[in-house]
Amino acid sequence: MSEPLELLENYRAFEGWQKRYRHPSQTLHCPMTYSIYLPPQTNTAKKAPVVYWLSGLTCSDENFSTKAGAQRIAAELGLALVMPDTSPRGDRVPDAEDQAYDLGLGAGFYINATQAPWNHHYQMYDYITKELPTLIEQTFPVTNQRAISGHSMGGHGALMVALKNPGRYLSATAFSPIVNPTQCPWGKKAFSHYLGDDKESWKAWDTTELILSSADADNVPILIDQGTEDSFLKKQLLTENLISASKIKHYPAKIRYQQGYDHSYYFIASFIEEHLRFHAQQFDA
Amino acid sequence: MSEPLELLENYRAFEGWQKRYRHPSQTLHCPMTYSIYLPPQTNTAKKAPVVYWLSGLTCSDENFSTKAGAQRIAAELGLALVMPDTSPRGDRVPDAEDQAYDLGLGAGFYINATQAPWNHHYQMYDYITKELPTLIEQTFPVTNQRAISGHSMGGHGALMVALKNPGRYLSATAFSPIVNPTQCPWGKKAFSHYLGDDKESWKAWDTTELILSSADADNVPILIDQGTEDSFLKKQLLTENLISASKIKHYPAKIRYQQGYDHSYYFIASFIEEHLRFHAQQFDA
Repeated sequence: MSEPLELLENYRAFEGWQKRYRHPSQTLHCPMTYSIYLPPQTNTAKKAPVVYWLSGLTCSDENFSTKAGAQRIAAELGLALVMPDTSPRGDRVPDAEDQAYDLGLGAGFYINATQAPWNHHYQMYDYITKELPTLIEQTFPVTNQRAISGHSMGGHGALMVALKNPGRYLSATAFSPIVNPTQCPWGKKAFSHYLGDDKESWKAWDTTELILSSADADNVPILIDQGTEDSFLKKQLLTENLISASKIKHYPAKIRYQQGYDHSYYFIASFIEEHLRFHAQQFDA
Repeated sequence: MSEPLELLENYRAFEGWQKRYRHPSQTLHCPMTYSIYLPPQTNTAKKAPVVYWLSGLTCSDENFSTKAGAQRIAAELGLALVMPDTSPRGDRVPDAEDQAYDLGLGAGFYINATQAPWNHHYQMYDYITKELPTLIEQTFPVTNQRAISGHSMGGHGALMVALKNPGRYLSATAFSPIVNPTQCPWGKKAFSHYLGDDKESWKAWDTTELILSSADADNVPILIDQGTEDSFLKKQLLTENLISASKIKHYPAKIRYQQGYDHSYYFIASFIEEHLRFHAQQFDA
């Protein structure tokens, strides 16, 4: 158990509540902050299914909360939204020596590090898939129906988490995800530090590799939106690699290029309604 | 004329465009930054009416652009949104001696200062009502139909600007506005610095006073939302003073208290759709 919870912020929003909490994480060995949106249906006795949102490099729990405009549609659909932070935090948590934005603080990549000095704190996969859902489901009026979404590094996280946990997450969607981290500079840098030199061990955290090794029975419904004017598309995100892997495995992922959109939260805001409706369809199925 | 315009940012959003520009302001004697949302209807030859948004203390053109979720409904309704900054800017622009948040930079109050050292740069009323609309209407595919909204100090600005310019603005709405600045600490501080000690001269910039001196023919449609849990309500915003004045003058302002909401952008996001639909009704009338 991760008590006590400390309520940091509390806002009425779309007749529900936008809240921000701090709690001591036993998995990450540090205090962690997360945001949660509880839809108006939970004001009475009703419980809501939960969509987890994983943010990208440099982000915290607040980017999606303040910029995506997701609460409106979550209120309409009766979905809770949970927004965790992107890495362990605090003075005792190791960071990149040069404080680079793509390693260490703000760049946990949602994996379990095996290498020192990272492995004591950087266990984001266990935090996201175990400690946090347990805390959320014990604390708030929510069901154990879960879906997961994310952006960029968080899009990698959402797809990877869902593919590794068929059944625990009913669906996954992503904006501008890093789909093949073992093959792009961001992923290679992070994985080499967190996981070491054995590149075979990297594959367990790579969406494209997980699709290639998936069995038909494991299919998780997936929706991905990728902007054509995203400056990271060709070098870091490698969307075409996932499209190829999905074709090889006949994996029914919906992967859409959106003309003229970039890597920003204006892109996310433009299509978040469709992603939440996609999740709601799975919850209702 | 205020050429040249410098395009600082450009994002696809809801099939329209969210842009940010810098231009040299002849009224304020400094470079000014503003944001504009052009709805998808303007991608073809169609022109859009414009809703101006005036932000509150400490804000810039970016708060509303990134946090309000207004572009979605502006896209649906075919409205352009223009978000100016809240004061003149730059090293040569005077600020409060103690850099207080409620005077000087970020706190222009949308009035024309008459007192030194403020009067050279702090001519926000002329900028908002003359220079900026002229620039917008000469530069972008928009009509000369205008409406105006704002939050807190910007709610004061929106109401005051519309009441002083019947016919130039078809409607005005406000979130958590300072409705009687001549009677609250924020307003008294700003007006005494910008306008001097003659309190009679303050009344020309005060919404409640403008309502009390209005003629029936001048009625501008007004919608105001005010959260009941707004920590500034009793001391700074003084909503009841405007309700009383509207009753005395039989002014048909719609003033709504929203239960449980505070002064934040989550409040604005929750009701911005109703405000934009209110403006669209006037444009269509």
